[in-house]
Amino acid sequence: MTEFEIISNYFSYSFPLRPDVILGVGDDAAICTVPAGMQLALAIDTLVEGVHFPSTTAPEDIGYKALAVNLSDMAAMGATPAWMTLALTCPNANDQWLAKFSQGLQELAQAAQVSLIGGDTTRGPLTITVQIAGFIPTNSTLQRRGAQPGDGIYVTGQLGDAGLGLACTRGQIHLPPEAQRYVESRLNRPTPRWQEGQALRGIASSAIDISDGLAADLGHILQQSGVGASVFVEDLPLSKVLRTYLSKETAWNLALSAGDDYELCFTVPPNRESMLQRALPVGTYTHVGIIEQMLGLRCVFKDRREFPIEKGGYQHF
Amino acid sequence: MTEFEIISNYFSYSFPLRPDVILGVGDDAAICTVPAGMQLALAIDTLVEGVHFPSTTAPEDIGYKALAVNLSDMAAMGATPAWMTLALTCPNANDQWLAKFSQGLQELAQAAQVSLIGGDTTRGPLTITVQIAGFIPTNSTLQRRGAQPGDGIYVTGQLGDAGLGLACTRGQIHLPPEAQRYVESRLNRPTPRWQEGQALRGIASSAIDISDGLAADLGHILQQSGVGASVFVEDLPLSKVLRTYLSKETAWNLALSAGDDYELCFTVPPNRESMLQRALPVGTYTHVGIIEQMLGLRCVFKDRREFPIEKGGYQHF
Repeated sequence: MTEFEIISNYFSYSFPLRPDVILGVGDDAAICTVPAGMQLALAIDTLVEGVHFPSTTAPEDIGYKALAVNLSDMAAMGATPAWMTLALTCPNANDQWLAKFSQGLQELAQAAQVSLIGGDTTRGPLTITVQIAGFIPTNSTLQRRGAQPGDGIYVTGQLGDAGLGLACTRGQIHLPPEAQRYVESRLNRPTPRWQEGQALRGIASSAIDISDGLAADLGHILQQSGVGASVFVEDLPLSKVLRTYLSKETAWNLALSAGDDYELCFTVPPNRESMLQRALPVGTYTHVGIIEQMLGLRCVFKDRREFPIEKGGYQHF
Repeated sequence: MTEFEIISNYFSYSFPLRPDVILGVGDDAAICTVPAGMQLALAIDTLVEGVHFPSTTAPEDIGYKALAVNLSDMAAMGATPAWMTLALTCPNANDQWLAKFSQGLQELAQAAQVSLIGGDTTRGPLTITVQIAGFIPTNSTLQRRGAQPGDGIYVTGQLGDAGLGLACTRGQIHLPPEAQRYVESRLNRPTPRWQEGQALRGIASSAIDISDGLAADLGHILQQSGVGASVFVEDLPLSKVLRTYLSKETAWNLALSAGDDYELCFTVPPNRESMLQRALPVGTYTHVGIIEQMLGLRCVFKDRREFPIEKGGYQHF
């Protein structure tokens, strides 16, 4: 199969067509228009086989996740996702693999209404890079900086499932089949919160997505905002699987450090809490801590005793 | 070194700062603005070690070329390059390697005034993906489609040097040191023609950059325009090194098929030839053929005898 056959067989059709894409796949570059009053948000994320996913991962899950991690970046900025380009490096042009990879990518692209506007396919070790672009009304960006002492700290969804899923995939822990399926699907098919991110425009004082664990990612908010925080481990939102099969300590450690959850962490000033309640449905987000003047992150019990975290967030090197 | 140290040491400073970059490296996404009346051109290209460059290539040349191939895509569309994101996968965080890679990337970024607005660094086999974004006035895009019978076919610069450079690098041919340095520099440091591309807005009826060899890339213009062409091999622009050290047949084959030259191939209707002469300096471009109604590409001598091409353009798979 030539590069041109790969593109026309797997990456030309069945992706959403958007009216702001003037020229899509098939020329030297794509041509798009940005609506008036909108700024452009751009992010790029790479998944490497053996580093970001084990070689046993299903190709449709790899396709799904390659877009998911980028949609999560759009969510963290409060941006509306619009277009993506795909740089796919793979050892050979396996028909079945490409069909499944493309199917997983399409599935999420349809859900998020993201057009595939271009790409590059190359031969080499399996590496998938997706670049995403989205829109955000001028001056409405959610940034890592902006958190102030007194702001509440919130997270969407539940934390730690992906970490447990990875432990299952690696055979480090054995769960009943249904529980294992659940946490592995949370690892392979995270649910990026781009709708929640948009709903938080004008409400959140800062935001980030949780890719390296809450402790590490909240740490970026604290550092860029020049503040500190206390997180209450007993308030961390945990799935029934984590609560059933793990000790509280292990579950909290996963939630704080394991990463790959792709939930949002955001802060909200006290005078905007009622706006938050109107913006997001009850049960989709959880108050987990408070921004403080004193620098550093303190993970504590309700009685303010310190909870000892076992390790830092995932380091790429 | 952590990912954060890599970014702040090598990819935060010394790149051009543009006023249209509202938020650059360091958050979940970059935020940029597109000037009124401008469309956005987006392209992505990957270089894989062992596939697109040998492992002996100097890191500063890899950094330079990773941007060059993307600038060449902007050139082919007639777009003004503006921003890039970088997805860098490398086996380890070698300080010296990163410093040199970043230096080569910066050098060309400064020349083209392209801001580095974001990226992702991951561990894995050496793979560099650059995504570039540029501007183009609405409805001024140069496309592959648009060539009409009677249009002249032109190329910028000289063809075949990069192919000879690769043969030198591989030890397949031995040249005097100065000649070898010249063709290897043409392989490792191509000169993307983004200024020429912009100058051709409203003049060229179609355009493409020559990455896979003139025959293959002109073939895309012909296919997408629904036309054919004759290319006159005796008119192909060849460097002094090719003319001195190779037979005419070998030189023409390299020019037609070797690729990696990153010159532009474009077509101009007869009634715009005087505009072309005003747009580009004499000697920077060469007339090499003519668009015809009869489908297919014919490489011919002036007396219309057919020149037998040895092989097709570079196939990625």
